[in-house]
Amino acid sequence: MKIVGLITEYNPFHNGHLYHLNKSKEITCSDYSIAVMSGNFLQRGEPALVDKWTRAKMAVDNGVDLVIELPFIYACQSAEFFAYGAVRILDSLGIVDSVSFGSELGDIHLLEYIAEIFNSESEAFIEYLKDSLAQGNSFPKAREHALVNYLKDCAPHYSSKISDVISNPNNILSIEYLKALKKISSNIKPYTIKRKNSNYHDKNLTGRFSSATAIREQLLNNHMAKNIIDTVPAPTYISLQNFLEENKDFNRIENFSNILLYILRNSTPEKLKSIIGVTEGLHNRIIDCSTNYSNINDILNCISTKRFTLTRLKRILIHLLIEINQDEFNHLHFHGPQYIRVLGLNTKGFDILKQAKLKCSLPIITKFADYKEFGNRVLNQMILLDKKATDLYFLGLDKGKIKMNLDYLTSPYINFII
Amino acid sequence: MKIVGLITEYNPFHNGHLYHLNKSKEITCSDYSIAVMSGNFLQRGEPALVDKWTRAKMAVDNGVDLVIELPFIYACQSAEFFAYGAVRILDSLGIVDSVSFGSELGDIHLLEYIAEIFNSESEAFIEYLKDSLAQGNSFPKAREHALVNYLKDCAPHYSSKISDVISNPNNILSIEYLKALKKISSNIKPYTIKRKNSNYHDKNLTGRFSSATAIREQLLNNHMAKNIIDTVPAPTYISLQNFLEENKDFNRIENFSNILLYILRNSTPEKLKSIIGVTEGLHNRIIDCSTNYSNINDILNCISTKRFTLTRLKRILIHLLIEINQDEFNHLHFHGPQYIRVLGLNTKGFDILKQAKLKCSLPIITKFADYKEFGNRVLNQMILLDKKATDLYFLGLDKGKIKMNLDYLTSPYINFII
Repeated sequence: MKIVGLITEYNPFHNGHLYHLNKSKEITCSDYSIAVMSGNFLQRGEPALVDKWTRAKMAVDNGVDLVIELPFIYACQSAEFFAYGAVRILDSLGIVDSVSFGSELGDIHLLEYIAEIFNSESEAFIEYLKDSLAQGNSFPKAREHALVNYLKDCAPHYSSKISDVISNPNNILSIEYLKALKKISSNIKPYTIKRKNSNYHDKNLTGRFSSATAIREQLLNNHMAKNIIDTVPAPTYISLQNFLEENKDFNRIENFSNILLYILRNSTPEKLKSIIGVTEGLHNRIIDCSTNYSNINDILNCISTKRFTLTRLKRILIHLLIEINQDEFNHLHFHGPQYIRVLGLNTKGFDILKQAKLKCSLPIITKFADYKEFGNRVLNQMILLDKKATDLYFLGLDKGKIKMNLDYLTSPYINFII
Repeated sequence: MKIVGLITEYNPFHNGHLYHLNKSKEITCSDYSIAVMSGNFLQRGEPALVDKWTRAKMAVDNGVDLVIELPFIYACQSAEFFAYGAVRILDSLGIVDSVSFGSELGDIHLLEYIAEIFNSESEAFIEYLKDSLAQGNSFPKAREHALVNYLKDCAPHYSSKISDVISNPNNILSIEYLKALKKISSNIKPYTIKRKNSNYHDKNLTGRFSSATAIREQLLNNHMAKNIIDTVPAPTYISLQNFLEENKDFNRIENFSNILLYILRNSTPEKLKSIIGVTEGLHNRIIDCSTNYSNINDILNCISTKRFTLTRLKRILIHLLIEINQDEFNHLHFHGPQYIRVLGLNTKGFDILKQAKLKCSLPIITKFADYKEFGNRVLNQMILLDKKATDLYFLGLDKGKIKMNLDYLTSPYINFII
């Protein structure tokens, strides 16, 4: 029983994801697959287009055998913590042989080489990093500069191409996965697949392999426009259609405008300063911009600088929405992931769970209410944030419907056919 | 210079208010009038239809000489504290000779008789009150029962008609004004005018003198429908029309649905319990109902009981919105009103202010930013709640516009003609 792990958001599951799933099983010689997937809020600091159960269904209907939720505290975080949470979960299962991720580069050795440099944090590297941060660059940008400068000294043949490598978002995530694997001394073997689809940030559909960004743009602007059908597998299309029928809309951060405006205008500097990522006077910028603009996107644009990227700012908003601060995150992160929460599976997924139950170092939760049985306060705190995120997620959608406590009320999606 | 004080909400200023203004000046032989008026949130726990400056303009354009804001902490309170705050402000001015209020009864002597009974709080009366509260009645209802029973013993000739007197909202308010006057040993002489217009709760327009409730219903459902013009003076009609043009809507609690849903679903039992009026397990009802309904009116109906009236519940919502709890209110109320905040005036209003400056025991604020000069922490805390209420008030209206810090940016309305 060889199992490959995938770290995903599936927002939504498209043809590129299907290619990645099949190619991953092929190159790792696996017959089973497990996806760790963000819940209702994503790494980019936004609500997912469709809720986590719908996205788990898409994944399972497209052939993923088991979908596990990445807890909110790790899902809506910088690449480093996102990767760490997901890798720890895959490792905790005790049965995952390999992990496979897409990257623009497609060369696992170079990615590992960079991960090693980041992990080792040599004095020279740290000096370069500090210098660039002092120039007002965001952390990813500063790290890129530091790496280029560092390599100029010790590996000049790499230095010229490295900037291109490390500015690509999937390379960055890949490096973080590799860092995390090394950090926890995991036996899981990493693989990377060169991304087949277009540029990550491409806003236009480019045929069968279009970027998730372009697909989302289409869905948000034109709903189930016909051209979507070419870019996503049929199970995705059906799930999206059903979701739209039920909720009248896809979810987006703009749906929380009024609530976010309320939160921002009601926040004290002290509260803002307690939120992860609010450093160096950012709270003052947030307060000023919230006062001077009345639209959440205008406010975000007003706050953002070279250093404070839009993604970082959106994560801050979501953390304000859910009310989680740096202290609470530190406390939870200190203990690490506490549970394996199943969102969806097929019959092969049942076999995986059977195996995992023998090897897994964390409790496996298939029925939400069971979390109470473990009498573990950290677990309770962490999983109740997932529940809170779900409850608040639906405030962005059709208001007439009662969508509360869905975590208690929804069973994992099961596909008995595949 | 004889001055009559009026305690008002003017939501909106209608023909009944005009009648009351003129009749009040007549029976008190006053040539000057001052209205103490709620700010952007009202005694009934709702945002005002139109903002406080627009309502001050209506009042001044209709002949009130000076409009003073009743601070948020007193405006959005039970009749007792609403009345106390307003009476204290009129008294503090040091130049008000009389106060005149509308009542269903129109008999100041009987109202004073009842006020005296309430103020003296005899043992027998308190016993009757406790009994009725224990039967699950709301405080006003229990007080009515207690009064009827108490009078059966000591003034049986009143007892039969008293229930009718004290169940009418304007009689209740009148009694509270009289209680407050006695409590602070004010020299202001009270007068009451029998209300000319229809029943307070009447939802249908009934010609020239229609209830404010009926007028609001019309405005909220049909905007500037033609039949409104018969029920309000021309200056009101024009102000309403301008407000609607600017904001595309009148304000109402439903405009805060999404924000209130967020607040309710995000509130802990501890937070709810700290809010004024949340007693005897009400926090549990609030949490249950917020979970089971997705529309703010459904939630309110679900929570309400004989004891917890809709008005009380709406005030709780507004206190949650503004984030003011019982402790903060107690602290501020202990010190009483701290300032005279001018919202609007005419040339006669300037004469009043000139006189008031010589006699008034509180600072008179015509320019908002001046509040800082007094170095009075209680004043700061109280007036910044008014500012916060204004900022949040506009979240219920047209979202595209930036309506922040209007307290700093708006001067009192001045009408130089009257």
